[in-house]
Amino acid sequence: MVGMDLSAPLPPMPPMRAIGVVRTEYLDPESTPIQAAVSRDVHATVELLPEYQEGLDGLAEFDYAWLITWLHNREDPAATPAMRQVPFLLRPQQRRVGVFASRGPRRVNSLGLSLVHLERVSISGFSFAGVDLIDGTPVLDVKPYVTRFDRPPGDAEPRCGWFDTIAVAEGSTPSKLGRRPE
Amino acid sequence: MVGMDLSAPLPPMPPMRAIGVVRTEYLDPESTPIQAAVSRDVHATVELLPEYQEGLDGLAEFDYAWLITWLHNREDPAATPAMRQVPFLLRPQQRRVGVFASRGPRRVNSLGLSLVHLERVSISGFSFAGVDLIDGTPVLDVKPYVTRFDRPPGDAEPRCGWFDTIAVAEGSTPSKLGRRPE
Repeated sequence: MVGMDLSAPLPPMPPMRAIGVVRTEYLDPESTPIQAAVSRDVHATVELLPEYQEGLDGLAEFDYAWLITWLHNREDPAATPAMRQVPFLLRPQQRRVGVFASRGPRRVNSLGLSLVHLERVSISGFSFAGVDLIDGTPVLDVKPYVTRFDRPPGDAEPRCGWFDTIAVAEGSTPSKLGRRPE
Repeated sequence: MVGMDLSAPLPPMPPMRAIGVVRTEYLDPESTPIQAAVSRDVHATVELLPEYQEGLDGLAEFDYAWLITWLHNREDPAATPAMRQVPFLLRPQQRRVGVFASRGPRRVNSLGLSLVHLERVSISGFSFAGVDLIDGTPVLDVKPYVTRFDRPPGDAEPRCGWFDTIAVAEGSTPSKLGRRPE
């Protein structure tokens, strides 16, 4: 990777637009499940803005979907977070890892990626199970889960770094996982 | 979902920042593989901007990662695309589906989600296999693949809608899949 030219300016990026919002029972990030996978029995809805609702055509025939969201509850959304952080799951050990080896919400771009179980798709949105988002979170994109694209190939279990060294309990929230680092 | 209040204004969203760029052998979207999963033998790199490189700490211990990218090659990035489109894979049938039931690049927010096989993580970036991006694509986020979070639970194969009705050939590109719809 020596000699990569990053001196050319990156193209300007248009502002993202919310396509809708998530309606959930959670108001406080510290008591919100850390991942959809640890809250499979919790239900919520996505309501799309009218101009985008036709884009749901065909989604009911999928069992799972990815929500790409904007995690809007950051204290200072324009600030750059620390590049090494203590993830929620490593609060007991107070161990830091790189933000790109973590799934935490304090990122350069606060984008959330949630795998949710689709329950009912309506004209205007859908209900789902597996909730790791606070109420009112803006949705930037919905993509159907496609096994052929989204599961690593082969039968071997992929290495998952520091996640392979810890247990992840159902219902885990930041506040249950220990004190917030400074 | 009746009665959802979308009248409250959505919070303003800060502009996204590129954390780096993808360097690939592809220049033309029509001859670029449609998904990382159909180009597992193709190799590319991500080079991060210096201020974000420390965020790579720990990523080498993962086999796979998600790249969230900005698909910057849209002709008119500010325009809203059609909500029902013919996906690349349905060009032979010329069948339309909703954009949120498709993985195509012409979205309200042109966000790409690519599952890539990590090969070598260096100080400044990483090389990977599985390439569905053109050269120079801005990277918005890198997240490690975590089986516990990213694989639907249970042994049953999830329903994947219209993808379950078609074969997806290794090396598929838009131009191999038929003429571009109007």
